[in-house]
Amino acid sequence: MADELAAATAAKKQDAKKAAAAGCPFHQKAAAETSKPKKHVGFDYEAFYKGELDKKHQDKSYRYFNNINRLARKFPVAHTANPKDEVEVWCANDYLGMGNNPVVLETIHRTLDKYGHGAGGTRNIAGNGAMHLGLEKELAGLHRKEAALVFSSCYVANDATLATLGTKLPGCILFSDAMNHASMIQGMRHSTAKRVIFKHNDLEDLESKLKQYPKETPKIIAFESVYSMCGSIGPIKEICDLAEQYGALTFLDEVHAVGLYGPRGAGVAEHLDYEAHLAAGQSRDPIPGSVMDRVDIITGTLGKAYGAVGGYIAGSEEFVDMIRSYAPGFIFTTSLPPATVAGARASVVYQSEYLGDRQLKQINVREVKRRFAELDIPVVPGPSHIVPVLVGDAALAKVASDKLLSEHNIYVQAINYPTVARGEERLRITVTPRHTTEQMQNLVRAVNQVFTELNINRLSDWKLAGGRAGVGIPGSSDTVDPIWTDEQIGLTNNTAPRSLRNGEKAVVDAKAVAVARSRFNVLLGPMHGKLQPNRDFGTTTVPDTVLNAPLGADKLSVTPAIAVSA
Amino acid sequence: MADELAAATAAKKQDAKKAAAAGCPFHQKAAAETSKPKKHVGFDYEAFYKGELDKKHQDKSYRYFNNINRLARKFPVAHTANPKDEVEVWCANDYLGMGNNPVVLETIHRTLDKYGHGAGGTRNIAGNGAMHLGLEKELAGLHRKEAALVFSSCYVANDATLATLGTKLPGCILFSDAMNHASMIQGMRHSTAKRVIFKHNDLEDLESKLKQYPKETPKIIAFESVYSMCGSIGPIKEICDLAEQYGALTFLDEVHAVGLYGPRGAGVAEHLDYEAHLAAGQSRDPIPGSVMDRVDIITGTLGKAYGAVGGYIAGSEEFVDMIRSYAPGFIFTTSLPPATVAGARASVVYQSEYLGDRQLKQINVREVKRRFAELDIPVVPGPSHIVPVLVGDAALAKVASDKLLSEHNIYVQAINYPTVARGEERLRITVTPRHTTEQMQNLVRAVNQVFTELNINRLSDWKLAGGRAGVGIPGSSDTVDPIWTDEQIGLTNNTAPRSLRNGEKAVVDAKAVAVARSRFNVLLGPMHGKLQPNRDFGTTTVPDTVLNAPLGADKLSVTPAIAVSA
Repeated sequence: MADELAAATAAKKQDAKKAAAAGCPFHQKAAAETSKPKKHVGFDYEAFYKGELDKKHQDKSYRYFNNINRLARKFPVAHTANPKDEVEVWCANDYLGMGNNPVVLETIHRTLDKYGHGAGGTRNIAGNGAMHLGLEKELAGLHRKEAALVFSSCYVANDATLATLGTKLPGCILFSDAMNHASMIQGMRHSTAKRVIFKHNDLEDLESKLKQYPKETPKIIAFESVYSMCGSIGPIKEICDLAEQYGALTFLDEVHAVGLYGPRGAGVAEHLDYEAHLAAGQSRDPIPGSVMDRVDIITGTLGKAYGAVGGYIAGSEEFVDMIRSYAPGFIFTTSLPPATVAGARASVVYQSEYLGDRQLKQINVREVKRRFAELDIPVVPGPSHIVPVLVGDAALAKVASDKLLSEHNIYVQAINYPTVARGEERLRITVTPRHTTEQMQNLVRAVNQVFTELNINRLSDWKLAGGRAGVGIPGSSDTVDPIWTDEQIGLTNNTAPRSLRNGEKAVVDAKAVAVARSRFNVLLGPMHGKLQPNRDFGTTTVPDTVLNAPLGADKLSVTPAIAVSA
Repeated sequence: MADELAAATAAKKQDAKKAAAAGCPFHQKAAAETSKPKKHVGFDYEAFYKGELDKKHQDKSYRYFNNINRLARKFPVAHTANPKDEVEVWCANDYLGMGNNPVVLETIHRTLDKYGHGAGGTRNIAGNGAMHLGLEKELAGLHRKEAALVFSSCYVANDATLATLGTKLPGCILFSDAMNHASMIQGMRHSTAKRVIFKHNDLEDLESKLKQYPKETPKIIAFESVYSMCGSIGPIKEICDLAEQYGALTFLDEVHAVGLYGPRGAGVAEHLDYEAHLAAGQSRDPIPGSVMDRVDIITGTLGKAYGAVGGYIAGSEEFVDMIRSYAPGFIFTTSLPPATVAGARASVVYQSEYLGDRQLKQINVREVKRRFAELDIPVVPGPSHIVPVLVGDAALAKVASDKLLSEHNIYVQAINYPTVARGEERLRITVTPRHTTEQMQNLVRAVNQVFTELNINRLSDWKLAGGRAGVGIPGSSDTVDPIWTDEQIGLTNNTAPRSLRNGEKAVVDAKAVAVARSRFNVLLGPMHGKLQPNRDFGTTTVPDTVLNAPLGADKLSVTPAIAVSA
């Protein structure tokens, strides 16, 4: 490992230099390490801050932010600090490329024109508009729940909701999956309720803990559908069984699942009753007995698969109204801009009407996993869309990430402690329907080369070493069946979408566009004809890479940017 | 009061009907009050929610959100649930109308074209771009601090920063002004530190509490510059004196002051050394000994005077880097969209270059206060831009607000408990530089009429009753000298801007536009010539009310919307 660590040190120095060149103030300062005169009598605050930062540097958990600017018309390409320096992004959570979907952008431009930028107040004071109410109605319908409520982010939604419930419900006990996201952990800490942690996805452990309390005691089981760093999926149905048996509420975080699972993109809870939800179409009514109906509280984000920002909760009318009425994190903050929520709504509607992006994402995920397996690259096995490539060392993970960026123009952030456990550091790869076959080949080739150059453990090495983080565990399979079946992807009846090749245009679904547009008929006026996602003017020319689709029965063309001379 | 209460009840019924018509789910349900079958064994969660809501209904603190859609090209006009039903908004926190400033909108459209909608990740994973870094650099420069950090909102900034500091600083004691905002209170609660509350703006009380702890004990004094519900201003300089004497950090919330005070809009701390900051121009260097330099931590929002969304902290390099590295509320959430932060930056730059909006706002505030005083309407005295009209009764405040809306097309939200103390309910009026003389006359006339019709206490009534909430207190003045002096507003040398009349176009400052545009030369390309804030197309025609300015030496014209047929 001596070589790797030497390389890590060299890379870090180079990184600090690069960061300084990029004008990132934190990294400049970290390099300069100037000392300042003490300003106060008494406690030395500046020295204290410096000490806390030194701890991060020492245990290698200090974070150097990469400067990544994702280009709407070159997805998945971004430029770095130098606008001419372009890289392929392989770790963003804009899972479907909806951040540049043409009907989303068209809607945002139109909403800006009509309603301007900020909302101008809290939801109670001038910041509650038809766009906000419309999005909440859409989200409630998506999850077939009575109501939904939008927050600044799903971090805030989880924090505020769990803190409020845990504080208000008398004597409440919170049962929390050991791998839960920081936002849920904070929310539970911020409540006055007792917190009981159960082993990740372990129903036996959960039940043994639930049964220690009377059925009449209020309880919340807080868990996720897709765990974003390992790609595992929570046993939602079985947790609902336990909840009903022991009198607990179910609080399900679908942040990494909404938009991506289920026939309408409502998440894994919907996916588990795929055929029933497909048959129910766009009805807002709950399907009694379905897993999604049995879950009491669903939280989701608008900032990942929907390509926007913000978060939400969905559940019963009274539950949502209670949170609306009591949660300070909802009440005392400026609401999201109308254009943001309009864009998010267009995205939710588009994805609820169009299955192709979800299918193609899974096809590409399978392809990347297959290619890694062929090359003995260790991927944490899981049934979801997350592709966690195990590195198993903090310094090495950072060097691997830096090498991919500087030598291959591939951006995959290294995931280190505290986001994952020490020794389980990884490259977390997110594959989208918009990555081309050539880009996938290029990624796998580059990762393989970096693994060879840095002598990173392969799957067979982990097997010899007894396994780690689910990789190469004796007696376990190297792969897990994906939750999207061959049939659901369209592989059994030849309706599966085909991966893009370089230069090909992404498909835009005409029906989904028409339905998304129609949601804004009253507020923005009806829109028909060619999509106008770009509002370019001035000296910018029309790019080659603008989204497009072949004209056809169910496909729409996208007009190029409107060029207006200055 | 019997008549008023009967009127309140009638109005509430009408309100519920209106809300139902507007399709607002909460209010529909509140009206219907259906009961649902219990879903779980054990505790009855739905009954519990309903009980919590009943408490709100009983004490009149249940909130009915008005449906308000602020129209960019008719500022300060909004439409209600019915797009044809227009009202004048008199309570939004878009204090300067920057939500529809043409260079802000132009910048957002351009950024959307280039970078799409959402950021696509946390700041650590794919969501850290040049737009984010640029805004933070801008904000640090505005406050002449070493660094700044942007959060989802200032609620999150306050919460995350105080929770992190209070938890990390060993044995920290938090000294909190009794009127502090909910976000600060939550942040302090979420820390493990002891909290000591001092009387609002009471230096003696603060000092008596500070001196009970050794100088070496870490301490934070958390307070605000402008208290948004009463309009008072914190004694910033004097609190800095105490902080230095007793070894405390100063944590100053300038949320209701940034953009509005100081020669560059950096807030009240800047305003207190007006001439020195004016002379220093746009230098980023601190002014040693100035109040702004002496404050350790400044927090601000992008969601009020800057017309966007998001919040931030500014302070020393190590302080900001420590929060960046440790605060879960910063680390584990999707960053704001590039277009949002670009728009916010354009707004910050524009306001730092142009004084006229700040001056005209103060002129209009003075005018409204003067007219209210003439009519014996009780305004809580204060030196800031907030115009709190005392009503002193929850039901009455709501009826007054409803009457203004339904009978006068004037929207001023009633502010009730818990935002203000019971018995101190008020109409909180925000006057902008874009309200016209006629609109101000109309507002004052309507409020006067509603006061008469509902027999609400006037200033003279409160005097007879011994005063309330700072109004009519025996021995106190009815007014407080404004913090903006006649000289600063330009009244002493005839440079003061003039209030708009109906039909007049708002002034857009050419130099401020040019400077704001230049900030985006590298990322978006240079922009010159006519402003293009609207990207209209399709069937929408060019509105009469588009922002404009007379062509002149230092003024720019704004082009009408671009009309492109579908």
